[in-house]
Amino acid sequence: MRNTLLDAGGVRLSVRESGPADAPAVVLVHGWAQSGEVWSPPSSLRGYAVDLRGHGASEVAGGGYRESAVWAADLKAVLDHVGRPAVVVGWSYGGLVIADYLRFHGTAGLSGLVLVGAITELGRGRPGGLTGRLADAVLPEAYSDDPAVAVPALTGFCRDQAPGLGGDVVQRMLGTALRVPPWVRRDMFRRDVDSAGVLKAVDKPTLVVHGTADEVVDPAAGEYAAALIPGADLRRYDGIGHAPFLERPECFAADLGRFVAEVSR
Amino acid sequence: MRNTLLDAGGVRLSVRESGPADAPAVVLVHGWAQSGEVWSPPSSLRGYAVDLRGHGASEVAGGGYRESAVWAADLKAVLDHVGRPAVVVGWSYGGLVIADYLRFHGTAGLSGLVLVGAITELGRGRPGGLTGRLADAVLPEAYSDDPAVAVPALTGFCRDQAPGLGGDVVQRMLGTALRVPPWVRRDMFRRDVDSAGVLKAVDKPTLVVHGTADEVVDPAAGEYAAALIPGADLRRYDGIGHAPFLERPECFAADLGRFVAEVSR
Repeated sequence: MRNTLLDAGGVRLSVRESGPADAPAVVLVHGWAQSGEVWSPPSSLRGYAVDLRGHGASEVAGGGYRESAVWAADLKAVLDHVGRPAVVVGWSYGGLVIADYLRFHGTAGLSGLVLVGAITELGRGRPGGLTGRLADAVLPEAYSDDPAVAVPALTGFCRDQAPGLGGDVVQRMLGTALRVPPWVRRDMFRRDVDSAGVLKAVDKPTLVVHGTADEVVDPAAGEYAAALIPGADLRRYDGIGHAPFLERPECFAADLGRFVAEVSR
Repeated sequence: MRNTLLDAGGVRLSVRESGPADAPAVVLVHGWAQSGEVWSPPSSLRGYAVDLRGHGASEVAGGGYRESAVWAADLKAVLDHVGRPAVVVGWSYGGLVIADYLRFHGTAGLSGLVLVGAITELGRGRPGGLTGRLADAVLPEAYSDDPAVAVPALTGFCRDQAPGLGGDVVQRMLGTALRVPPWVRRDMFRRDVDSAGVLKAVDKPTLVVHGTADEVVDPAAGEYAAALIPGADLRRYDGIGHAPFLERPECFAADLGRFVAEVSR
């Protein structure tokens, strides 16, 4: 494992690289207020787990969090660094970042797409951005500048997104979330994004994974993306919440490994 | 500003370097469950702000947190990286790490010492480790594996250590604290350390800064170190809490700059 700092239009993005240099490449995009640390890519793959701007070990850029073109450019910087076609995996808000990329760059540089508990749209009435009970319960409190408001909301979010996580894991995820400045957490949701056309134009193999008990992103958001992306395979994880790769790590690793093997043939 | 990763006996330690390469060198050692991010060294100095093992961007070593020799070796790795005599500044638990260094290496590589709201000893009845009301109120809860116990305790600690900090600053410090594994937070206090002989043997200029309203480390702990270290200068910050460099940044920067200029002549 090594950390690389990339220059993405003036902001330095941290990328955790793992696995054999010549193995199939997988770019992993985490969700809102998390970091690339959430991923444990199979050791048979070359993983590139980026920390999005404002998150983890990446710099806190002064802006860009509401702009599709900026998210697209950030992901392009990672793919340019990889330098060969990669499967991109997006968790939660990471799916929206992938949609941002598709909007500006199509599927250039992509060998396949994986969406996990992901949104692809954002805003009232957008089916690709349909949130669940838990997200509705903690927003907008989780954006607050006031620790007395934000901390309990984020604690509930981190603890309940995937029941059964250890207390040490919850504390670390909560720590990661709290280190994202409140205004960045807020800005990321101040967007109105329609991705229907973008999803219909995808011309690469796509796997959509969604827990049937996901209370952060409604399973209907995953179904929406799977229905619009031509030929997409929808895999429902029965009884699983918002983090299939943490709740059923072996199962997710097997599904991801199989998908990458298929698209890399 | 750039980040360097040092190898300290198998664990990689992150060091934030700032300022002109040929300016007087200052090594900054943060406190329990914080990181080098807390420091803003004057731009006229060459700053080396380490993240201690298990903290910030440094690796979480599997052990060593109870061992004086390990802390000593970690600080030695930083000083070896600096490569010339430096002033070491220790905040809170960082003062204990400096005492650990002195125990094994004396003042080799040091041009001066600064202790800020610092302990130099640890354990029941140790005057150099005397804690205040706030520390007593949140320990041992702040070590708990259970988020329901640890999060409120750490929130209170981060918020009340230095009254007047912005909510965004408190959230970021709390995030840093929560990302230190609970067992590391715990291990660091499972020590019994007497430093009287070590302090009496200091043969370099020393400045002790302590807020008179510090409720984490009792001002008596600073007075104890200042009394034992030959020729030490004790500077009381009237009405200030546990983080003088955050509560009175200009004043602390001036005091530090003046001290470094004197010892670097």
